[in-house]
Amino acid sequence: MSEKVLKSEIVFQGQFLKVTRDQIKTAKGHLSYREYIKHPGAAVILPVLDNGEILLVKQYRHALRKVFYELPAGKKDAGEEPIKTAHRELQEETGYTTDQMQLMTIIHPVIGYADEEMHIYLATNLKAGPANLDPGEELEVISLESSKLKVMVQKGEITDVKTLVGLFWYWNFINK
Amino acid sequence: MSEKVLKSEIVFQGQFLKVTRDQIKTAKGHLSYREYIKHPGAAVILPVLDNGEILLVKQYRHALRKVFYELPAGKKDAGEEPIKTAHRELQEETGYTTDQMQLMTIIHPVIGYADEEMHIYLATNLKAGPANLDPGEELEVISLESSKLKVMVQKGEITDVKTLVGLFWYWNFINK
Repeated sequence: MSEKVLKSEIVFQGQFLKVTRDQIKTAKGHLSYREYIKHPGAAVILPVLDNGEILLVKQYRHALRKVFYELPAGKKDAGEEPIKTAHRELQEETGYTTDQMQLMTIIHPVIGYADEEMHIYLATNLKAGPANLDPGEELEVISLESSKLKVMVQKGEITDVKTLVGLFWYWNFINK
Repeated sequence: MSEKVLKSEIVFQGQFLKVTRDQIKTAKGHLSYREYIKHPGAAVILPVLDNGEILLVKQYRHALRKVFYELPAGKKDAGEEPIKTAHRELQEETGYTTDQMQLMTIIHPVIGYADEEMHIYLATNLKAGPANLDPGEELEVISLESSKLKVMVQKGEITDVKTLVGLFWYWNFINK
């Protein structure tokens, strides 16, 4: 199972999004086009406080015109190791720092039309400090009990996939 | 928490992807742009056979140059109810049909740069029949035991988010 790339071109270069269009030939010889977003990758952090509560951010997401509960996360800078992104974004968004950052898993949120890969980390032994948001980034940091979050997930109040996978991973494989 | 849209334009219209760019003003008065993909929404199906095995498809995904294990899924046609999409895609991709299709949850896979919403259904009481793939759609249907799938998830062999959330939902809230 694979596809041969006959031609590749960047068909849109915006301020944030870059779209590539490849002409491809499928394994069975069918000719088609694939359009997809080139993404640098991202790091996601599940921060567990010493009292067991989990830190989240509430953030307005314009594409869906809605406020989401999310795990802290952010895009990798060019060439940045994802664990460095995780430390940087945790500090920027929440102010917390740690020497305990452990990779839980790697996920692909948009396999149909983006090459984005997300590394999801578990952060423990957290120390509070000042946040340092990017300009235009406006969010609220909250902490909630794990059991309360599970109720919110089941009620459909948390729908962001990086947050769902991070939480389910924690509940199923880490803190069973 | 919200953003006021000052201007909205379609900045890219490809064969598959459409990008919108909005100029916005944040709650704190910061001016910025948001670029995002307009998506019709999708339905995802977790099909559980009478013997307890779960149906998946293996499919090559060009954006990541890799074969993925996925739950059957597909985009809504214009104006289509997601449950109708679920029945249609299940039959097209796997050949199975059912009168037991139950909404588990709704997720947002790409809140940073797409308005995509996915409805995830549990399909039971499945009857086998002939598949009916779209032209250029090449995939392999497999069925695996739930417990084996959990091992594959933990090993990082299943990384597609709709599939992960569907499986975790089933394990945590349906078939505990």
